Amino acid sequence: MNTHVVRVDIDHAPYDILIGKNLLATATAIGQHLRQPRVAIVTNTTVAPLYLSQLVFALQAQGISCQEIVLPDGEQFKTWESLNLIMDALLTERAERKTTLIALGGGVIGDMTGFAAAIYQRGVPFIQIPTTLLAQVDSSVGGKTAINHPLGKNMIGAFYQPKLVLADLDTLKTLPDREFSAGMAEVIKYGLIDDLEFLQWLETHIDALMARDETLLAEAIRRCCENKARIVAADEKETGQRALLNLGHTFGHAIEAGLGYGAWLHGEAVAAGMVLAAYASAALDHLSAEDVQRVIKLLEKARLPVISPNLGAEQYKALMAQDKKVDAGRIKFILLRQLGQAYIGELPETAIDAALSAGCEVVK
Amino acid sequence: MNTHVVRVDIDHAPYDILIGKNLLATATAIGQHLRQPRVAIVTNTTVAPLYLSQLVFALQAQGISCQEIVLPDGEQFKTWESLNLIMDALLTERAERKTTLIALGGGVIGDMTGFAAAIYQRGVPFIQIPTTLLAQVDSSVGGKTAINHPLGKNMIGAFYQPKLVLADLDTLKTLPDREFSAGMAEVIKYGLIDDLEFLQWLETHIDALMARDETLLAEAIRRCCENKARIVAADEKETGQRALLNLGHTFGHAIEAGLGYGAWLHGEAVAAGMVLAAYASAALDHLSAEDVQRVIKLLEKARLPVISPNLGAEQYKALMAQDKKVDAGRIKFILLRQLGQAYIGELPETAIDAALSAGCEVVK
Ligand SMILES: NC(=O)c1ccc[n+]([C@@H]2O[C@H](COP(=O)([O-])OP(=O)(O)OC[C@H]3O[C@@H](n4cnc5c(N)ncnc54)[C@H](O)[C@@H]3O)[C@@H](O)[C@H]2O)c1
Ligand SMILES: NC(=O)c1ccc[n+]([C@@H]2O[C@H](COP(=O)([O-])OP(=O)(O)OC[C@H]3O[C@@H](n4cnc5c(N)ncnc54)[C@H](O)[C@@H]3O)[C@@H](O)[C@H]2O)c1
Ligand SMILES: [Zn+2]
Ligand SMILES: [Zn+2]
Repeated sequence: MNTHVVRVDIDHAPYDILIGKNLLATATAIGQHLRQPRVAIVTNTTVAPLYLSQLVFALQAQGISCQEIVLPDGEQFKTWESLNLIMDALLTERAERKTTLIALGGGVIGDMTGFAAAIYQRGVPFIQIPTTLLAQVDSSVGGKTAINHPLGKNMIGAFYQPKLVLADLDTLKTLPDREFSAGMAEVIKYGLIDDLEFLQWLETHIDALMARDETLLAEAIRRCCENKARIVAADEKETGQRALLNLGHTFGHAIEAGLGYGAWLHGEAVAAGMVLAAYASAALDHLSAEDVQRVIKLLEKARLPVISPNLGAEQYKALMAQDKKVDAGRIKFILLRQLGQAYIGELPETAIDAALSAGCEVVK
Repeated sequence: MNTHVVRVDIDHAPYDILIGKNLLATATAIGQHLRQPRVAIVTNTTVAPLYLSQLVFALQAQGISCQEIVLPDGEQFKTWESLNLIMDALLTERAERKTTLIALGGGVIGDMTGFAAAIYQRGVPFIQIPTTLLAQVDSSVGGKTAINHPLGKNMIGAFYQPKLVLADLDTLKTLPDREFSAGMAEVIKYGLIDDLEFLQWLETHIDALMARDETLLAEAIRRCCENKARIVAADEKETGQRALLNLGHTFGHAIEAGLGYGAWLHGEAVAAGMVLAAYASAALDHLSAEDVQRVIKLLEKARLPVISPNLGAEQYKALMAQDKKVDAGRIKFILLRQLGQAYIGELPETAIDAALSAGCEVVK
């Protein structure tokens, strides 16, 4: 299989995303992007036994010295404390300003390592090796980095771009089914936002994709990265259109926070959140009932939840009001004008209520 | 007295430094720079009783709502923990992405608040109101923000530019003498780096400056800010010439760390460190003995320490090797080709030893 290259054209620091096989095992691209023959690899206890030694071996073969920082696994560890473990390790080993940090793992490791790179000595180079589908199509692209705070997810972070992203299809083989599905939620998101053709392509190939056909997967990842790269390049700091990428996320974050982080996967919450956004768009007469069913059907085929937990309308609203997408107390929603055409808008109370009663589990 | 305006021409985000009187009491410039009528003011227990109510009053008169965050006072509180207090307070009050953080205090408050602004929700606007001489001429200009780590000073931080800096001469009246002198160390630094004319001007006016003549002080602060703004605009991320601003700081940081943070003030350590850098430059035959004495004399008139503590050469070297200005294990020093002309270079072991034995206290 050929390696796909997607260029992310951020003005001050453009970089490439490589999508293909055998990228981690050779790591040649990494060697070309270092400022000194020294890296610190941040990963977790799940990914380390699967891929760390392979990567270290490939890097050492190029004369690159590797520090290994292995964190506990889980969204609940995306905290100050874990970030501090990275800082302590880097300072103890005297990592320098030209030392490159490498994130080897899913979105949690990517977000934390990116943030660590942004603030260690006011910024050191960093490379992403996303190993989940979600991280390959979404979190590793675009430079958003963050940790959670007890009062809100991703509340502390930075915009900080990597020097290189390696999305290696080989790593997806070990990904648990539930995680794979969660990644598909973000894949489907791109179709809904502004790529109707891609949405149709996904509807055609969803079964083969779920069977992890590598050629189709590479194609899907490439298209997602292209879509995200284009949106991000136009609006790095999310002052405008970049917010479209949050389709399903305002509701989704409320679900994650309401159930307690970790109960549902991020992608699962986004899937159910996109259904709520679709119902809300229907309440505004933008989508037909058939459109909403089409969204639901595709998500179901990707084995994702399409019914949201019943937290009660009040708790949903309170949690959404804490989200970052708030301006002078008003919540910004990402809604659908039609399938494949998202926009940023406000949502009248009645439409929120309608969406929640249509999309939430009925409590008996 | 007229207000001086110094423009800092950072490509992507130019901003003004206003230097004058009555800036805090009116706060009109602040009102013009907000993105929503809401600010969070970060200050400490020493500065709050002196200036906070005055500032809040002036802002509220413009219809701006103010959150007050008062931290404990001291370099020893420039930590994760204090930063977390800021984050907790902002999240508890649901500060938004357009809420402006205002730093009211010296360099410690400025550095921490700037860093908090850089990472709260991935970046919110921020304004500096430096209330120490050091902060007015140095730390509030240029966008370096940071906190300390047990293994090194300013090791965690970000480059993040303010929207506006207000240097109000009125606030200097309450500044303790020792703090005032510490600020003069950084003032003198600018003369030594690349402004011989300014160095001579300082030699002429040092007594009046130490008597806090406001017209001369405003002139000195303006010149320092112009010098720093020029250097920073040319090299925001310190890949080159910006490092010149660290004259005296590699030795100075070793003094601060060696004695324990807080024993000497930053400016005091920089003063003694500049003397060591001068001796080292003399050891390289760049400066004459008279040049070194001229540096010492000016610093003495500014009531600054010119003799460094005797930590022993080994400890100095170990501490300096931990500094950020290290590349592949080699320490970069800022040295003087002549007075008013600094450069970045390496220092042979022998020159370090010569400087330390000339400049350190003799232990009997
Ligand atoms: N920065 C962004 O723009 C952005 C965008 C979307 C999501 N995110 C963040 O990403 C995170 C979610 O990322 P995620 O879904 O990758 O979760 P994750 O990082 O927790 O990974 C999911 C699980 O899979 C394991 N794993 C990773 N790679 C594996 C592999 N190859 N084989 C087997 N197991 C593997 C992980 O250890 C973990 O247990 C959230 O914290 C979310 O906030 C960030
Ligand atoms: N960001 C940069 O580029 C940069 C440059 C130089 C120094 N720094 C940092 O700045 C810090 C030192 O700054 P500093 O010297 O201002 O120290 P500081 O902030 O600790 O202030 C010194 C003391 O004066 C008090 N104070 C402040 N304003 C006062 C006033 N108007 N009247 C009376 N008391 C007042 C403070 O509460 C404190 O006790 C260090 O942490 C250093 O690392 C940063
Ligand atoms: Zn997401
Ligand atoms: Zn300094």
